[in-house]
Amino acid sequence: MEKEISQAVIRRMPRYYRYLGELLEEGVERISSNDLSNRMQVTASQIRQDLNNFGGFGQQGYGYNVQYLYDEIGKILGLTQTHNIIVMGAGNLGQAITNYVKFERLGFRIIALFDVNPDLKRQNVRGIPIYMMDELDEFVAKNEIDIAALTLPKEKADETAKHLVDLGIHAIWNFAHVDLDLMDRRVVIENVHLSDSLMQLSYNIVKNSK
Amino acid sequence: MEKEISQAVIRRMPRYYRYLGELLEEGVERISSNDLSNRMQVTASQIRQDLNNFGGFGQQGYGYNVQYLYDEIGKILGLTQTHNIIVMGAGNLGQAITNYVKFERLGFRIIALFDVNPDLKRQNVRGIPIYMMDELDEFVAKNEIDIAALTLPKEKADETAKHLVDLGIHAIWNFAHVDLDLMDRRVVIENVHLSDSLMQLSYNIVKNSK
Repeated sequence: MEKEISQAVIRRMPRYYRYLGELLEEGVERISSNDLSNRMQVTASQIRQDLNNFGGFGQQGYGYNVQYLYDEIGKILGLTQTHNIIVMGAGNLGQAITNYVKFERLGFRIIALFDVNPDLKRQNVRGIPIYMMDELDEFVAKNEIDIAALTLPKEKADETAKHLVDLGIHAIWNFAHVDLDLMDRRVVIENVHLSDSLMQLSYNIVKNSK
Repeated sequence: MEKEISQAVIRRMPRYYRYLGELLEEGVERISSNDLSNRMQVTASQIRQDLNNFGGFGQQGYGYNVQYLYDEIGKILGLTQTHNIIVMGAGNLGQAITNYVKFERLGFRIIALFDVNPDLKRQNVRGIPIYMMDELDEFVAKNEIDIAALTLPKEKADETAKHLVDLGIHAIWNFAHVDLDLMDRRVVIENVHLSDSLMQLSYNIVKNSK
């Protein structure tokens, strides 16, 4: 079970989790890999291969128990525990993330935002407090933080990330338009580069119009 | 030049563009693939291989002309033309995207938002108007729209996407927590699934803590 699983497989797991959640909402109890395959537009063999990385979960000719598979993938994705998040930067993007209640249902709980703008002092986003950056160290010392979301200008991102790591935060959800320079540290980083995503779209528009 | 280039290569191109832009800002005129490699934490051979997909751009032993390479990758990514964008959904996320001025410098110009909330009628986001959904058809008929960003609840996303395609919009930047069901149509879709990204992060936190 402890063998290295490729990030390509990991990237597909949340998608399985999402589809299985929808099936549960629809009251579906059991699904064949073929039906799941049609629904997800992934080959049935890909699904079997992906799930075999974690030990299988299905019985030949009998399909998958949806609730069981959903729970197991939830465990694999670490969703059985709650993750406390702080959001660095309380601008539009920071506030948008904080307002996204969906994350909470998955166990991701945003507990504070931090900003340098004094106008935001003692403000809150749906009850979640905004603190000033100089209150960060004390807050982190007093609360268990699992993830820091970075929605800062790229000029501030590296320095802030390093400081967060020094404070003991080992997972960063990075929205800053820069690749964080933390190669030497034991930190998990997940990037959301919105501009990169728009550029990919633009490439495919050009290609598609030929 | 018209051979199929893998999406993995395309995913790396915006990153090259970003790094080359930073080099230009620093006044660097020429860079070897080794120096670019160190900076980007990608092997030099990967860089050469990626760029060879588009015809090369470098001279053996002489390195890359930064401005030239930047411009050429910009062309490949379709950044020499302006893309007009409408944002479907003027909630926090829609407003956050609209406020992200960086996109404009890349030629992505948000020209309107649409929502169903009557409180937002005749409001604007830094001067960019918010319209009601029932004004969409007329707006699209009168303006050239290249991309629609979907920041709607997943229940509304499919229906809205189909309607946008019927109106002649062929590129969708999808933030809704669902894979759009447009397989039968000639549409380019780029997904930003924020929850999926958090789940990947969560997986890597668990793995890292073992």
